[in-house]
Amino acid sequence: MKVAVLGYGTVGVGVCRMLASARGLSLGPVLVREGKATEPFHVTSLDDILADPAVEAVAEVMGGIEPAFTYAARILESGRHFVTANKALCAAHGIELDAIARRTGAAFLFSAACGGGVPFLHNLALAAESDSIRSLSGILNGTTNYMLDAMQSSGLDYGGALKEAQALGYAEADPTADVSGLDAMRKMQLGCAVAFGRLPQTGAACEGIEHLTAEDVKDLQARGLTCRLITRGRPAGKSVSAYVEPTLFPSGAPECSVRKNYNMARYVGENVGPIVLMGQGAGRFPTASAVIRDLSCVLQGQRAMFPVGCSAVEADNSGEEHPYYVRLSPADSRRLPIAKLLSAGESVRAVTEPVSVERMHAIARIIRKDGGDLFFAALEE
Amino acid sequence: MKVAVLGYGTVGVGVCRMLASARGLSLGPVLVREGKATEPFHVTSLDDILADPAVEAVAEVMGGIEPAFTYAARILESGRHFVTANKALCAAHGIELDAIARRTGAAFLFSAACGGGVPFLHNLALAAESDSIRSLSGILNGTTNYMLDAMQSSGLDYGGALKEAQALGYAEADPTADVSGLDAMRKMQLGCAVAFGRLPQTGAACEGIEHLTAEDVKDLQARGLTCRLITRGRPAGKSVSAYVEPTLFPSGAPECSVRKNYNMARYVGENVGPIVLMGQGAGRFPTASAVIRDLSCVLQGQRAMFPVGCSAVEADNSGEEHPYYVRLSPADSRRLPIAKLLSAGESVRAVTEPVSVERMHAIARIIRKDGGDLFFAALEE
Repeated sequence: MKVAVLGYGTVGVGVCRMLASARGLSLGPVLVREGKATEPFHVTSLDDILADPAVEAVAEVMGGIEPAFTYAARILESGRHFVTANKALCAAHGIELDAIARRTGAAFLFSAACGGGVPFLHNLALAAESDSIRSLSGILNGTTNYMLDAMQSSGLDYGGALKEAQALGYAEADPTADVSGLDAMRKMQLGCAVAFGRLPQTGAACEGIEHLTAEDVKDLQARGLTCRLITRGRPAGKSVSAYVEPTLFPSGAPECSVRKNYNMARYVGENVGPIVLMGQGAGRFPTASAVIRDLSCVLQGQRAMFPVGCSAVEADNSGEEHPYYVRLSPADSRRLPIAKLLSAGESVRAVTEPVSVERMHAIARIIRKDGGDLFFAALEE
Repeated sequence: MKVAVLGYGTVGVGVCRMLASARGLSLGPVLVREGKATEPFHVTSLDDILADPAVEAVAEVMGGIEPAFTYAARILESGRHFVTANKALCAAHGIELDAIARRTGAAFLFSAACGGGVPFLHNLALAAESDSIRSLSGILNGTTNYMLDAMQSSGLDYGGALKEAQALGYAEADPTADVSGLDAMRKMQLGCAVAFGRLPQTGAACEGIEHLTAEDVKDLQARGLTCRLITRGRPAGKSVSAYVEPTLFPSGAPECSVRKNYNMARYVGENVGPIVLMGQGAGRFPTASAVIRDLSCVLQGQRAMFPVGCSAVEADNSGEEHPYYVRLSPADSRRLPIAKLLSAGESVRAVTEPVSVERMHAIARIIRKDGGDLFFAALEE
C-alpha cells in the first residue's frame, strides 16, 4: 500500500524512514511547505497527492487543526485511508472525520494521537468491541512526567525542571499545553470517545503541574508520596467524567515506577479487568511506530476506532470524589472541608474530606482569581 | 460470524458468555465430552461442528495437545478460522498449524495462549510487522507471581504460599508446570516465534521457584531486593536465547509493582523502544477476553501471528550473562566464580561474577544431581 505523508518534521521523517522497511507499505509523496521541497518525493500541494491514484493511504503528522482538517476531509472524501498522530485535530473534528470515513469506506485511525508508542487507543478500541470498559486513567503526558520525576528525584524546582525538559527536547519553548494538562486532556477526550462512544468536548477539568513547588515535593516525599499528573475518564450517566489533576501515590504503586518521559495508560474492562500499558509517549520513532502500526491495521482490514454513533458530550465531574492534599493560605483553607491539618503557618497543608472533582477545581479557580496561591493533588486511595 | 467452541470448562463458559454480546460474533455449537451434553447447543463430536456450514470460526479452549491438534488441523483444513488459548498446542504444533492456515486462507491466532487478558502476543505480532524487536521479557506466570508475592509480603514459606494459591484456584492440584517455569517458557516460545520467527522448541533453560525458602526471602528483603520469576528471549545469532529464572529487582522497579497473580510482559522495539503491558494473566473472563479479541481481529481481517517462514530452533543461552545471587553449600560454592561473599556458615550466600545462563543452569543441575541444595536468582543490573 502506497502511503503519502503530510508533514516532514520530527515524526514525519520517522514515518518516512519506517515506511521504507515496513511489511506491505511503501512511501509515496510527502507534503512539505512551499519552499521546503528538498527531496524528489516532496510535494507542496495536496492536489499532487490526490492526483496520484496509486496513493491508497495518507499519514498526517503536520499537527494543528488547519489546514489538517481540510486536508483530512478531502483525503477521506476521495476514499483514501487517513491515519493521524494529531490529537488536537481528532479531539476537535474526529466525529466529523469518522462520519466521512464510514460513508466512503476509508479507514480513519489515530492511535498515534495518544501515548506515542504506547498502543493505548489501539487496544482500547479492540477491547471495546467485546467488553464493557469501566474506566480509563493514566500518565498521558511525558513532558510533565519528566518534570515531576526530575523535581522528585533530583530536587529541582519547577523552573529548573522545565529548563531541563526543554534542553532535552521533551518540552517545547511554550510549554503551556503540556504543563496545564491540556495535552493530556485531549488524549483522554479521544480515549473516552473510543471506549465509551462519548467525546467530552466541553466541561473537562484540567489542573496541571504549574503550582507545584520544591517545598511541596519535599513535604510529599517526607510523607512517602509520589506525585504524578493523572488523567481519568469514565461513564457518568449519559455523559462521562474527564479530568486531569496531580495525584499522589504511595511508594510501590505502579505509577511510581513510571520515570522520566514515559507514559502509562490503564483501562479496566468488565471482563478483562485492569490492563496497564507503559512506554515512550513521544519522540520521533515511538510516535512514528504508532502511525505505522495503524497503517498495518489498515492493511489487515481495520477501518475505525470510534464506535458507531460516537457523539460529543459535556463532561460531568460532579460524581467523582476524592480527598485532596492541599497547600494554601489559612484564609483560603476555610473554603474547603478540611479532614486533617498536616501543618500550619503562613501556608496550611491539609487533607480534605472527599470533595467532588468539579467542586475542587471550581474552588481552585476562585482562590486563584482572588490572587491566592494553591497547590492541590488528589489522594489515591 | 458464527463461532463454535471446543471445551466448556472455566474459560469455555467465559467464551460462550462473551460471544453472546460481542459485536459481530455469535455462538455456534460447543463441543463437550461424551455424556456431558447438558445444553441444547452442546455437541459431542467435531463432525457436528464441521457439518455446519454456518460455522466460520472455532475457538479452542479444551487444553492438551491431543485431540486438540487433530481437531485444529481438521478445522483449518476445512478453511475455518481457528483461535486458541492452548499454549502447549501452539508451542508443539504451531508451525504446522500456521502452514495449514496459510494454505487454506484461514486465520490461526493464539494471543490468549500467553498472558491471559494481557494483549502481549497481539501487540508483539503487530509491532513485528514494522519494527525490529530486540528483546522480550516478563512475568508470564500468575501462579508463581502470586506465590512469590505471598512469600514476600505475608512471610509465608513455599508450602504455605502454594497451599494459599491452590485454595484460591490460582494453582492446580499438580502445580509442576507452573512452579518449574515450564508454563512461562511455553509462552516465551510463542513470543520468540511471533517476534523473531524462531520457535525455540529445544534447549530453553528453565529454573522455577521450588528452591526459594522463607530464609532466602528474609535475606533478599534485608538487601532491598524483590524476587520475580522472569522469562526472557532475544535473537542470538541464527537462534534465540530463551530462559526462565528467578530474578532480583531493586525496589522501585516496575516488576516490583506486579502483585498477586498479575502478569507483566515487555518487548523492546528498535523504533518504538520498550513497551510494557500488565494485567490478569489467567482466569475465566480475562482469558476469554483474549479469545474474543482474537476473533474480533479475525473479523477485521487478521489471519496470522507467526511471521512467514517461522521455524523451530534450538535455544542458545551461551551469550546471556548476569551476576547471580546464590545460596548453596560452601563446597558447592567452589563450582562458581564468586565475586562477593554475602554470608558464610552452613550455607553460603554470595554474588557471582557474570556467568552465562547456560553455564549457571548447567552447574545447578550438577549440584542438585549430586544431592546439593541450591537457590539462584539473576541480579537485574
